Parts: sequence; C-alpha cells; structure tokens
Amino acid sequence: MTTVGDVGERALIEAMLKHFTLMPGMPVPFWDDVMAVSLGGGRVAVFNTDMLVWETDVPSGMTHFQAARKAVVMNFSDLGAKGVRPQAFLASLGLPGEITVENVEEMARGFEAGAREYGGYVIGGDTNEAPDIIVSGVAFGTIEEKRLMKRLGAEPGDVLATTGHFGDTAAAFKSLLEGYEAPDDLRLGLLRSVYMPEARVTEGVALSESGAISASIDSSDGLAVSLYDLMRSSGVRFKLECLPVSEGASRFAELHDLDLGSLALYGGEEYELVFTVRPTELEKAKEALSKVGCRLIELGHVTAKRTIVLVENGVERPIEKRGWEHFVSSK
Amino acid sequence: MTTVGDVGERALIEAMLKHFTLMPGMPVPFWDDVMAVSLGGGRVAVFNTDMLVWETDVPSGMTHFQAARKAVVMNFSDLGAKGVRPQAFLASLGLPGEITVENVEEMARGFEAGAREYGGYVIGGDTNEAPDIIVSGVAFGTIEEKRLMKRLGAEPGDVLATTGHFGDTAAAFKSLLEGYEAPDDLRLGLLRSVYMPEARVTEGVALSESGAISASIDSSDGLAVSLYDLMRSSGVRFKLECLPVSEGASRFAELHDLDLGSLALYGGEEYELVFTVRPTELEKAKEALSKVGCRLIELGHVTAKRTIVLVENGVERPIEKRGWEHFVSSK
Repeated sequence: MTTVGDVGERALIEAMLKHFTLMPGMPVPFWDDVMAVSLGGGRVAVFNTDMLVWETDVPSGMTHFQAARKAVVMNFSDLGAKGVRPQAFLASLGLPGEITVENVEEMARGFEAGAREYGGYVIGGDTNEAPDIIVSGVAFGTIEEKRLMKRLGAEPGDVLATTGHFGDTAAAFKSLLEGYEAPDDLRLGLLRSVYMPEARVTEGVALSESGAISASIDSSDGLAVSLYDLMRSSGVRFKLECLPVSEGASRFAELHDLDLGSLALYGGEEYELVFTVRPTELEKAKEALSKVGCRLIELGHVTAKRTIVLVENGVERPIEKRGWEHFVSSK
Repeated sequence: MTTVGDVGERALIEAMLKHFTLMPGMPVPFWDDVMAVSLGGGRVAVFNTDMLVWETDVPSGMTHFQAARKAVVMNFSDLGAKGVRPQAFLASLGLPGEITVENVEEMARGFEAGAREYGGYVIGGDTNEAPDIIVSGVAFGTIEEKRLMKRLGAEPGDVLATTGHFGDTAAAFKSLLEGYEAPDDLRLGLLRSVYMPEARVTEGVALSESGAISASIDSSDGLAVSLYDLMRSSGVRFKLECLPVSEGASRFAELHDLDLGSLALYGGEEYELVFTVRPTELEKAKEALSKVGCRLIELGHVTAKRTIVLVENGVERPIEKRGWEHFVSSK
C-alpha cells in the first residue's frame, strides 16, 4: 500500500488531478499559484487556499497573532504574484476545545491585521473542532484576464528577475530548528522574516499593470522550487548569473561557515516575486516597481537548455530541485 | 482562562467578529450562510467555506469517497440556500503521511462526483500534512444581488415552508453512535441520509428565480437551530403548525418509543431549505419548486411573538434552541 508519505505532495496532486473534469474555459490551468473562474466580459475571479497546521507550520516563539497574520500573508502572496489585488479573506478554523478564547481573539486580530495591511477585508469563515489548530485561509480578488500573470509564458531570451533578497528564512529556520546561534540583533532580524513575513502584493499589482511580465510566481516554496515550477509550466530553463542574498543570511553563513548559495536557493516561506520579462520591456518593469518603492533585481535569463544553472566565477553549477515539499521534507 | 469548550461556537464567533473591520458595501452581513463580495453592476461573488474533520465529522462506515462528496454537498448546500448556482469547488486538504494514495484518490473521485452532480467543477486546492484528515472546502458562485435569498427578510404573516421531511439523519446517528438497532432495509435508508446526503441546489436556484422568497437558510444545523438563526437575522418568531417527518424516522421512533418531534427538530446534517414567503407569493413559490420536481411543504407562519413554538393537538409547545454546536455538543 503506497502512502502519501511515500510519494510526496507533487505526485499526490498529480494522482488527484486525473480524476477532475476540467472546467471549460478555465482561465488558469492546474499547477499555477491560484485558481480562477471567468466572470465574463474579460474579467476573472481569482482564489487561493492555503492551510496552516499548527504542529507542522508554526515554529516555536511565534504568537497566535503572528500565525494568523501569516495565514493571510501566504494566501495574499499568491494573488499578488498573479497581479491580483486581494479583496477578501475567509478563515476556516479547526480548533481544539482547550484553546483559550483569548488566543482565538488574538488570531482574529492577526487575520484583521494581515487583511488590512494589503487593503483586504476579513469577510467570514467557519469554526470547527479539530485535534490541532488548523487555519485554512482563502483569498479572493478579481482582475482583467489579460492582466493575470501566469506561470506559463516565459520564453528563452527573457530576463529572469525578482523583488528582493533571499536567505533570511532559511537562516532563521536553522536557528529555530537546528539550534544554530547568532547575536541578538542578527537573530531577531532573521526571526522577523519568519514571524512577520511580507507579501509583495503592491509590487505584483504594479508589475501586472505595467503589462511587461511574461511569467510570474512567488518564492514561497524556496527560490529553487519556484524556478522548477516556472520551468514545468513554461517549458523553459534558467541561467542565474546573480544570487541576491540578504545581509542577515550572509552574516549568518559566515558565522557558521555555511554555504550561502544553499541558504538562498533551498529555503522557503519567503514571499518574493520571481518573474520573467521580455528584454524590450525591462525598463517598463523596473519603472513600475520603482514607483512602488521596490528595486527590480536581475537574476539571469530564460534559456532553452536542459538544466537550471547558477553561474559562479564563470562556472555553471546545476541548481537542484530541492526545497520544502509536504510529506517528504518532514520525514 | 476561558476556553473555546467553555463558551461554544456561537460565542466564539461573536468574540472574533468584533475585531474585523466591515467591508464597505458587504452584500451579505456576518451570520448568514455565505460570504459575498460585490462585483459591481448588481452582481455578487458568493462563497462558503466549511471544514470536515475526520475524527469529529466522519462516522464509522463512511467511505473516503462519501466523506469527500459530502464536503462538497455541505458547501454547495449553503450556496443553494441563497439561490446561488455553485460553479467551483476548492479542496484544501490536511492529510496524515500514513494515508494511502488510493484513499486520497477515492477522495478526489468524491470531490468530482459531488461537484458534477450540482453542475460545478473542482478547480484546485491545496495539500498539507496534518494529524488527522481535514477537508476544508470552498464553494463559489455568482448571482444578481437582488436574487440573493438572505436570512434577513422574514416578516410576521409570512408563510414558513420547507423542501422536505426531517428526522432521517437524527435516527441514523442514534443507530451509528448510540447503538439503536433497526431492520436492514430501514437502517440502510437512514444511513444513506448521512453517507450520501443531497443538497437542494436546484430547488434554491428555482426559488430565488421566482422572486417569491423573503428569507432562506439550509437546515444543516438541525431544523430548530435553523429557525433560531432565521429569528436572529430577521428579528421574528415562528409558529409551526406542521412538522414533516420522514417515513424512516417515524418507523424508527415507533420501534424505539422515541419522541418523533425531537428527531425532526433537533437533528442536523440535513440539507433541506427552510424559507419564508409572503402569502401573496405562495403560489409562485409552489410553482417554482414543482417545476424542479419538489413539493413545497408549509410548516407554519412567521410571528411577532416572544418564542418559537410548535402547535400539537391545539397546544403550543416551545421549540428549544438545541442542535449541533461545535465544542459544546461534543463535550
């Protein structure tokens, strides 16, 4: 009997998808960050749903407020990566009977804070009894179909770019889960990336409105996995000529003699946008981001080669398909 | 420290709601069956999310297929009760690593079956590791705002009506959870109401299109609780002159000398529509239901009295606010 733990999340989803009838005219195929339904007149309703399970997803030291806020951020991030402004958040909660009302109210404040930060509203949800705290969030927004930035669309020659620096969360998890130490100022900065993450919603909407983007994804499963996901949907490969690493991750890597590239590539729960742009549209994309106070960082190029590589000191090194995958990573 | 188990689901929701900023122009207030967002031009996007937790919500003997199908039915039922035709279903899954891929595929078939039965499509979801099987379902559809049947709107003098007979599930749970016996033919019929429930989606859409309905709810928390929910939203009371009981529940009650009224009133997980109609519109509502093969059953009237009552042999007996409530009922 093959279990879910044997095959991992991606093979499991593959196995499930073959049983579903495709909705005619589905604006976004399976395997993208969001789900969508056509509203007619060129407009689409866009959803995402993402579940946070206390035991697996909430590291020690994280408050109920922070966990609830993060449930909003991770759902809104997927909408932002598609260029969609989130309008509403629904929280479906599983709660053990022993949890205090105070803690649940703290979670309510976290949902409210997360939603309002990005201009959305909590419009309801559902509460249930469960053996652990479960937050199944749903994000909703609408967009003109032609403005939707999909995973599909990258072409060889496009510039690969991102909105920020990587490595903070990977370093933070090393500190939280593996006991790596760091001076207080460094440690607090790293932990902030895990406890109080920020989604690139404004940036995603700006990029979408610029019309300059050929494909886009958020980096929530780690930069490497995001590239493999773009590869899968767009049928292309990537050559990374630059790996933007956060200052905190650099300090942390130096302190513990860790491979900096691994921290940046194989982390997760980072919510930067990773996207591709036709070279002729690059200035337009830069300008769009600059207007919302964000700098476009060029990572490299889209290629038609066989692998995804990182160029370091003139040498091409393959980037592995490694990062967080449910059921497998936690074994 | 007050726990969730101390206060129960309704007080908990009340405590959470006070932290949320109301979305301007929210088409449906909190405490209705669904959530909604205006799409402009008089149209609204309507959602529902409802979680099924294996340990609490899946009785023995129910297959993975049936549980998954039921997760769709319970979400679609809420949309149907508002007159909304469900277009899409999203399944956010929590799964223990030990569950077999075969069982998850059986669940995928259940989602597909449930969605297609009511004309909807499974458009995606999310999988996660969890200590128990959790299905957090999301249903989506759109409707003209003026066609939305809310809980708010019942007025004294309106006729109170429903789409079917009650008591099957209450009897089935007595058999499943308390060991009450019954002949095979009866038992199987009762269990079917729990394992393979049906939502009144076509009926809800027909009623909504008739324009005859002043308020509506589904009976998923039991008939009595549904009446109290309508009371809360519409600010009215009810006088029930008839209690339509299913044939199976009648046989079961006779067999075990149980109070038939209690089976019909205080059950749950029944998906009939309970609605109110202006007397002048009653024929129109009857006709609308008749066209989709359903008979409108008159339960009684909306009143401005102080309590909800059932008239039996000319005597008024109060209907209690009792039924399924998370955290409290299971204690």
